[in-house]
Amino acid sequence: MSAEAVIREVAAKAREASYELAVAPRSVKDAALHAMADALLERADEVLAANATDVARAEASGSPANIIDRLTLTPERLEGIAAALRELAALPDPVGDVVRGSTLANGLELRQVRVPFGVVGMIYEARPNVTVDAAGICLKSGNAALLRGSSNIAASNEAIAAVLRDAVVSAGLPADVIQVVPGEGHDSVKALMRARGLVDVLIPRGGAGLIRTVVEESTVPVIETGVGNVHVYVDKAADLDKALSIVINSKTQRTSVCNSAESLLVHADIAKEFLPKVVPALQERGVQIHGDDAFQAYDRVEPVTDEDYAAEFLALKISAAVVPSLDAAVQHIRRWSSGHTEAIVTEDLGAARRFTAAVDSAAVMVNASTRFTDGGEFGFGAEIGISTQKLHARGPMGLPEMTSTKYVVTGDGHVR
Amino acid sequence: MSAEAVIREVAAKAREASYELAVAPRSVKDAALHAMADALLERADEVLAANATDVARAEASGSPANIIDRLTLTPERLEGIAAALRELAALPDPVGDVVRGSTLANGLELRQVRVPFGVVGMIYEARPNVTVDAAGICLKSGNAALLRGSSNIAASNEAIAAVLRDAVVSAGLPADVIQVVPGEGHDSVKALMRARGLVDVLIPRGGAGLIRTVVEESTVPVIETGVGNVHVYVDKAADLDKALSIVINSKTQRTSVCNSAESLLVHADIAKEFLPKVVPALQERGVQIHGDDAFQAYDRVEPVTDEDYAAEFLALKISAAVVPSLDAAVQHIRRWSSGHTEAIVTEDLGAARRFTAAVDSAAVMVNASTRFTDGGEFGFGAEIGISTQKLHARGPMGLPEMTSTKYVVTGDGHVR
Repeated sequence: MSAEAVIREVAAKAREASYELAVAPRSVKDAALHAMADALLERADEVLAANATDVARAEASGSPANIIDRLTLTPERLEGIAAALRELAALPDPVGDVVRGSTLANGLELRQVRVPFGVVGMIYEARPNVTVDAAGICLKSGNAALLRGSSNIAASNEAIAAVLRDAVVSAGLPADVIQVVPGEGHDSVKALMRARGLVDVLIPRGGAGLIRTVVEESTVPVIETGVGNVHVYVDKAADLDKALSIVINSKTQRTSVCNSAESLLVHADIAKEFLPKVVPALQERGVQIHGDDAFQAYDRVEPVTDEDYAAEFLALKISAAVVPSLDAAVQHIRRWSSGHTEAIVTEDLGAARRFTAAVDSAAVMVNASTRFTDGGEFGFGAEIGISTQKLHARGPMGLPEMTSTKYVVTGDGHVR
Repeated sequence: MSAEAVIREVAAKAREASYELAVAPRSVKDAALHAMADALLERADEVLAANATDVARAEASGSPANIIDRLTLTPERLEGIAAALRELAALPDPVGDVVRGSTLANGLELRQVRVPFGVVGMIYEARPNVTVDAAGICLKSGNAALLRGSSNIAASNEAIAAVLRDAVVSAGLPADVIQVVPGEGHDSVKALMRARGLVDVLIPRGGAGLIRTVVEESTVPVIETGVGNVHVYVDKAADLDKALSIVINSKTQRTSVCNSAESLLVHADIAKEFLPKVVPALQERGVQIHGDDAFQAYDRVEPVTDEDYAAEFLALKISAAVVPSLDAAVQHIRRWSSGHTEAIVTEDLGAARRFTAAVDSAAVMVNASTRFTDGGEFGFGAEIGISTQKLHARGPMGLPEMTSTKYVVTGDGHVR
């Protein structure tokens, strides 16, 4: 079968299954999530054995250690994955939530109600935990999931899918609400991206390259997640102690994530006082600073380039510049930011108002670390990703962002 | 200049202007809308003269009368267009609306606030009223507008844009919040569709062909508007008087619009009683019925084909079938509907619940005409179109649907 035919077939099965899932009450969905968690632990041997073959293959092909680590499952990791499913079960059901409603002048009753998208495609890299996580989030939000992970985890995904499908059947839902998309290489990804009308939404999770490819090639609507070229601006009215701890936390608390800071802007009026604090504080923590002339006055600061300003380092590196004004900081951010998260540190209410109004990013922090842009931190529970697009969802996406709405209008023979 | 270079240039100007518009208070935007209305009437001669050259060109090229009618402006039509701008001014400003907010356990204050998209591109056909309408809706929602109408109304659009740009400047906003995209033929449309990163959202308004092209070719996120293959299902528990008036109203009150009915489904249990009423009632009003065997028992009913079931007639035609059950009606709708609007006529609460849950369309009517799926009827005021997609907006789109959101998070030195 061609890749297109395979996708048509799995998508048709997913569509059929989605009808039943869409009207399943919360109790059934939560029971399925618990059954999935139970089954993953009960059949851990099966899953771990399959995963071991993926790991062996990756090792044989000379994959780097961090990739191997990402695709490796252990009993402890399976426990964590199962626990996440149980946490999903505890979250409120977004489906059926009435977003707005009113009775119109003519007596028609209008309700806008959350409904599942229908069929959601996930395209992601070699992380078997994403397979379970995405299956769970889709199920709770009433969506049939088509899961296309990297072929490096094909054996793991097949084993996981077998376990999860049995579990949802035991809870009374059709197996095809969870399907792993078969196929090697790029063909099946391409077919998935062209399956407009069969698949309602595609969500790529992974590196910038994967996301760019999906965004550019897909005719299926895409929710773009998270490249973060994140800025911290220290205003002239900043409390410098707060500024120092926010800069350090934003940059160093965890460097490999999209909400970590990649660029530091300091108002000229406080540069003489703040730079002697922040430069050594960052350097002590192993951060390499790529700075403008003002920063280069300090030891071991490298000259900054446009490439540095544009970079999402995801490492112990930061670009840094002194700016003459808040407006100049805003200009710099408009030019270089990826629109994920920006922070201002200031005690001046007017400066905070101006910055939060003028900076157009998914999240704007005032006197807080950029690391707070996170579904868990925001209290959303599960997070499917952090959207950096402006349509549909922006910022951390929880379960409600995994739904659409429909209008239900009730009358008594009303005509126009 | 190439079409790409032209789009880059106008989009860059729009982006710059959008920054000022995004933070403009409601009072300034409403003043601009009134100034636009005033200017259109004061400079009506200029606009009508330009429009006359478009009309003359269309007549010389032998365009059909209905197309000529659509692109013709008159003093009365300009009055109506100006009045619509004043109605927009009276609507609430969506920008700044706090969608949700809370104080997190750690004291961080979280607010999700409506913000403009930024730069919105409109691609539409030969209707100069859409030029004004779209410019007004974009302005009120804080978005800079790039307007690409059919080149058949190029002269009208240039004149209208000159008038509107002067008006917004008189209200203190930059002229470039409203720009007509120059260029003949398909090149500039293509360049607009590929302007990802420069244009935030594209909205095609027009026929099914235009919308399909934009949806398939655009790398800029698209909001798809309204093809309607709309069904009315008359349940076995229907009040047949209500059913008759709803069917007639849905089909005949206005046939050229996307919320008019194109297909009638009747439960077998009441077919013997209802068909003798509905068939002549529709035929008296000039409706040609394409029916299944049961309907063909009546005079002048043509045999129905799959093409008929799939068709959005936008004319005095309807496909019609008798179905053995509510579930069969749902199956039929799943197969053929475009997901715009479906109606059930029933007095049975269980049937209404089942139908509204199982039918996945932007609007589902119970005992009401499908013609109510409309921003004005729903009380939204201005309507930019009716979305039939599931991402971002579904159903009639008002001003809030022309915005994105951002999270503003305020702390006091918070770190993780």
